[in-house]
Formats: sequence, structure tokens, C-alpha cells
Amino acid sequence: MKIDGRQYRTIWLADDGRSVEVIDQTKLPHRLEIVTLRSVGDAAAAIRDMTVRGAPLIGAAAAYGICLALISDPSQRGFDSAAAELGATRPTAVNLAWAIAEMQRAVADLPEAQRVAAAYRRAAAICDDDVMTCSRIGDHGLTLLRELSASYGHRPVNVLTHCNAGWLATVDWGTALAPVYKAHDAGLEVHVWVDETRPRNQGAALTAFELGSHGVPHTVVVDNAGGHLMQRGLVDVCIVGTDRTTAAGDVANKIGTYLKALAAHDNEVPFWVAAPSSSIDWTIRDGLLEIPIESRDPREVTTVMGRLDDGRVVEVAVTPVASAAANYAFDVTPARLVTGLITERGLCDASSEGLQGLFPERYEDE
Amino acid sequence: MKIDGRQYRTIWLADDGRSVEVIDQTKLPHRLEIVTLRSVGDAAAAIRDMTVRGAPLIGAAAAYGICLALISDPSQRGFDSAAAELGATRPTAVNLAWAIAEMQRAVADLPEAQRVAAAYRRAAAICDDDVMTCSRIGDHGLTLLRELSASYGHRPVNVLTHCNAGWLATVDWGTALAPVYKAHDAGLEVHVWVDETRPRNQGAALTAFELGSHGVPHTVVVDNAGGHLMQRGLVDVCIVGTDRTTAAGDVANKIGTYLKALAAHDNEVPFWVAAPSSSIDWTIRDGLLEIPIESRDPREVTTVMGRLDDGRVVEVAVTPVASAAANYAFDVTPARLVTGLITERGLCDASSEGLQGLFPERYEDE
Repeated sequence: MKIDGRQYRTIWLADDGRSVEVIDQTKLPHRLEIVTLRSVGDAAAAIRDMTVRGAPLIGAAAAYGICLALISDPSQRGFDSAAAELGATRPTAVNLAWAIAEMQRAVADLPEAQRVAAAYRRAAAICDDDVMTCSRIGDHGLTLLRELSASYGHRPVNVLTHCNAGWLATVDWGTALAPVYKAHDAGLEVHVWVDETRPRNQGAALTAFELGSHGVPHTVVVDNAGGHLMQRGLVDVCIVGTDRTTAAGDVANKIGTYLKALAAHDNEVPFWVAAPSSSIDWTIRDGLLEIPIESRDPREVTTVMGRLDDGRVVEVAVTPVASAAANYAFDVTPARLVTGLITERGLCDASSEGLQGLFPERYEDE
Repeated sequence: MKIDGRQYRTIWLADDGRSVEVIDQTKLPHRLEIVTLRSVGDAAAAIRDMTVRGAPLIGAAAAYGICLALISDPSQRGFDSAAAELGATRPTAVNLAWAIAEMQRAVADLPEAQRVAAAYRRAAAICDDDVMTCSRIGDHGLTLLRELSASYGHRPVNVLTHCNAGWLATVDWGTALAPVYKAHDAGLEVHVWVDETRPRNQGAALTAFELGSHGVPHTVVVDNAGGHLMQRGLVDVCIVGTDRTTAAGDVANKIGTYLKALAAHDNEVPFWVAAPSSSIDWTIRDGLLEIPIESRDPREVTTVMGRLDDGRVVEVAVTPVASAAANYAFDVTPARLVTGLITERGLCDASSEGLQGLFPERYEDE
């Protein structure tokens, strides 16, 4: 999408045809900095330090990390060493393991001399496939927004979103925000309520940044505000992303998503989840029982990163020194609170039946 | 309650018997500073700048402000001028107007020479009455916590609270936290989940500070976490305060309260509101229709106050410069989501019938 009128992806090949460039997301929204990855060590560090984040983007960065490793050592041993280094960065990210396995398949049967070129082709394809998946989610979501717009009349469609499931979390378009960009680009008036999304503030930092940079009208609110907005009729639809979706439609997503789903249900606001099929875990059904919830460093709760008046970005403590804090990263929204899923194949109910209609091949074994 | 083993109220008469001392709440939790109010101007500034906040404490500070004004001018003109200055500080606080009216009644019929002493007596009585009201709320809430403790067995009772309805918002004890202090002091094991309560972080700053200072075990969480905690059985009861309660039991309280009430309802966690009768607006019934919601400075959303490593307290920006923000201060929790009210006269249903049982004199006109 666009930043200051220029088209970007989150990751791309540098002019030398080998190095990889990424937007440093730890600096947003305060500074736009491009970082060049020249080695597998650079790629691993970028994933570990969250220079890049978001499951699809992590997969893409890992794929290019393998390419960079194979330049210096195209042997299987070189591959395995790179795979181990990359695989250890964010062990819970499903796309990381998936991308590494894809890269292995792409080079496994080739002589060493052909592996680097094949790896770069596969990494580029992984990126392009992700862009296509997100673009399709955007198209299906656009249909939904058009219907809402038609039923509500002239005013902009008010979308509420949580965390960042935008293009910065993917290679381009995003998942939850793809419909918003498609709508905006098609001239359909849309306005986004952006939950700031404590503790890491991905909403205030990343979602607000990418919407603003692309020119989409939006308003940042604290995470506490969504219920009030829905009570007052100020939200037409909620669209959020998902970190893991069960085969029955339960959705694990950033902590706080469940609270917004409850408010949407209480106020009859449609609550949609943008779920690329890569986020669906076909092996589980009950999100509350079967999805383990990561606890992260309490320091994310006790501190906030922000910009001083002089432009410096600093971390400040917001709690008493002696107070403990807990930091649960995700919560589970039961399928009963989800109006539907927006997948790359279309819209469906958040249920086994809904998913089976779109992905019948997943159910052939049963 | 206690800070480092020493007993405090939030406001008290200085050793000179005339000046008034208060804890500067804008400096918490980073520094404990006592501010001396020597004139009505000092008192008005303390209320305006939120050196003191919380409806009962604002009332007490205004009462002492009148005392300080009468020292230099005990005439009705002096009173009126002080009342105007104090009344303009936080126009929406019900207790402010109430306290000024009480002070007027206390001095109206007296010769000027007797007014100062009478004013100080009435101000002290306003403080003591508030302490008594909160203490009674604590006693009634303690009964509730004892029942929960008995039904759950040995583990600590886990209370979730939102914002700060603790002793710092009152003269002592607090409203929502009074039962917690009573329980802790009585040896009943209790642990509090403290919502940080963006945008102003009164939970992380004030609730965590006062619980920690008194020795009550607690854990700070982001506002997004409460739903997850309740889904996982980690919350036995929610207790929150109220800024305004309708005669039918609807509750206007800090933004985000409604989301926690929804989660409590969805997970069958009791949701209690500590409501001194002074918070009940007997003239209205429908909170959503009849309670106007204050919109505050968006800067509270776009910035966060915190402590740098070197101890300095600074404000940092957390959103892109170009992004708009909205700042709704309160939301309304419908009575259907409230298990009951804890008043100074006892527990009751959040309904006209419940309130009528405890406050029959309010219904005699009907």
C-alpha cells in the first residue's frame, strides 16, 4: 500500500538482487526506516526483534533468510543450520515453520549450483501468493462493506478493528484491513475506529500509521471505548484478524478481541474475522480448551514506548515499581460471537459447516 | 489507608489548624508528594489540575476551600465569590455543588465572627461522613467476599476492578476497594486484578499504588485482558465504582466498565457496583438515554505519562502525528448486566425495586 504516495510492500528484494529490504516496524509510527538484511543472521534478528512481525510477513522473511544463507552455503547442512536459526526466533508462529518447509521442498532435489536461484524464486512466490490471498480477502470483504453501505445509506461505513491485521502484518493489503483498502481505493467512503491495542499498541502505532499513510480516514480510541461506540451506533461492522482459527470457527486473536465481540453481539453489530486459510488449524475445534495462550514479558504492560517532544523515542514506566503485572497475549472468541469468516475463497459462517462449504477438500478424510 | 505503614487520609487539616494538606495524585505512582492548600485559589487549582480527584474527595476539597476563603472574607460576598471559583473547576462533579450547598447551610445564619469555625466543623464532618459511608460499603462488601470465599474454598478471592474507586478517590476506604481493604484487614485472603484503565491509567497509577502501599496483593493487567481472565476462571467477582447510577440501576462509570460487565455476564462472574447513595441520580431511569457522556481532550489518548529510567516523569506520544483520536470518558452499563449494588445501607438488586427496598424515603412521593 502507499506511504506518502509511494507504493510499498513490507519486504522486497534490494537493487543488488540478493539483499532484502524491510520496513523497520519497531520504529513506527515515529520514523519510517528501511533495514537491509544481508545474511540469515540479519533475517533471524529482524524476526526475533520484531523489525518484521505478523505471521505472513514472518514467513516471507524466513524464506528470504534461507536464500541469504544458501548464498554462502548451498549445502543441505547450510540449509539445516539456517532453518534451525530462523526456526528458533518465534517458535509459535505457524507460518515460520511452513515457509521453511516450503523452501526445503523448493531446493531439495536440485544440485547445489541451482539452489540459490530456485530459493529466490520460491521466496518471491511465497510473497506473491500472500499478496494474492490478502487481495482476495479484500475483494470478498469489499462485497460485505458495499452491502453495509447500501443498507445504511450515504454516510461512511464505520469499521472498528483491533490490533494490526493490516498490510504491515502481511506482504501487502493485510487481512482485516484489506477490505478497507479495497473500499477506499474503489471510492466507497469508509472510516476506521482504531483500538490502540495495549500492551504493544499495534493499533495506535501500526494500524493508525498505515491507514493514515494510505489516506484512509480513521480515529484512534483506547481499547476501553469500543463498547460505548457500539452502544451509540457509531460502529457498522467490526473486522479483526486471527492468529489461529479452529475448524469449528473459534478465533484466537490479540487479547481484547473477545471483549469487542461481546459488545458487537450485545449491540447487533456484525463481527467478521478475516481468516486466510493458513490461519485455520484443521486439527482442533474448541478454541478455549485447545489453544494455549502465550504469556509474554510483563514489561510490555508496565511500560509504554512513545515519542518525546524532541522526537526521541523512549520507554516509560506506567505502574508502581513494586506492582506485579500479567501479560496474556491472546484471547479466544467463541464461534457463537463471530458473524462470519472472510477467507480468500469467500465469506462463510464461523462453523464446521461454513468452513466445509469453502474448503471441502479438508473434510474428505472424515 | 496505609502508605509504607503510616495511616493517611487523602485530605487533612495541617498542624496550623487552618491550612489543608492533600496527596498530590498527579505525581502518583511515581512520587508521594503532599501539597498544602492555603487559600481558596489553592483549593480551586488542586481540583482543576486533578491534584485531588474522585467525586467525594472533590467535595471535601471544595468544603475546605470555602473555609480558607472565609478566613480572609467571612461575608456572604466572600462566600459567593469562593463558591463561584470552586464551582467552575469541574462542573460535572455532583459532589462539588453538593458540598458548597452544605457549607452555605452551615454558615448562612451565623454572625460573621462565628462562620470560620462553623465552616471548619462542617468540612470536617463532610470528611468524616464520607469515611463512614465508605466504611459501611466496605462492611457490606466484606460479607459478599466472605460468602464467595466460603463457596470457593481456600484460595484467595480474585477481585477484578476498573479505574480507581479506592481510597484515593474518597477521603478514606474508597468505594469499590473498601470491601477489599476490609477483607485484607480482617485476614481474608484477597487478590486484585487491576485494569490499567486507559487513557489516564488511573488503575495502573492509583489503584495499584494504593493497594501496594497498603499491602494488598494485586496484579496489573491491560484493559484488554479482563475477558480472558474471566473465561479462564481467574476472576471470582468484579467490583467497580460508579460516577452516576440511575434510579433503575443503570451505571455510568469509567469508559470500559461496560465491556467488563459483558464479559462477567458471559462467564457467570458476579458483577457488583459500589454505589454510595450520593452517586444515585433519583431523577433518571435510563442511563443510555439520559446520561450525557463527556468527551475529553484527545491528547489523553494520544499520549501517556510515565517514568523514565532516571526517575523523571514525562509525557510521550503513542500515535502518528496526523492521526485523530476520540476520548469518551464514561460508558453506561445497563442494569441487566449488574449483579447488584453495594450501598452504605447494604446490598440490593440494580433495579428500582432493589433501590426502593433500601431507600424507601426516596419513593414516598410516587
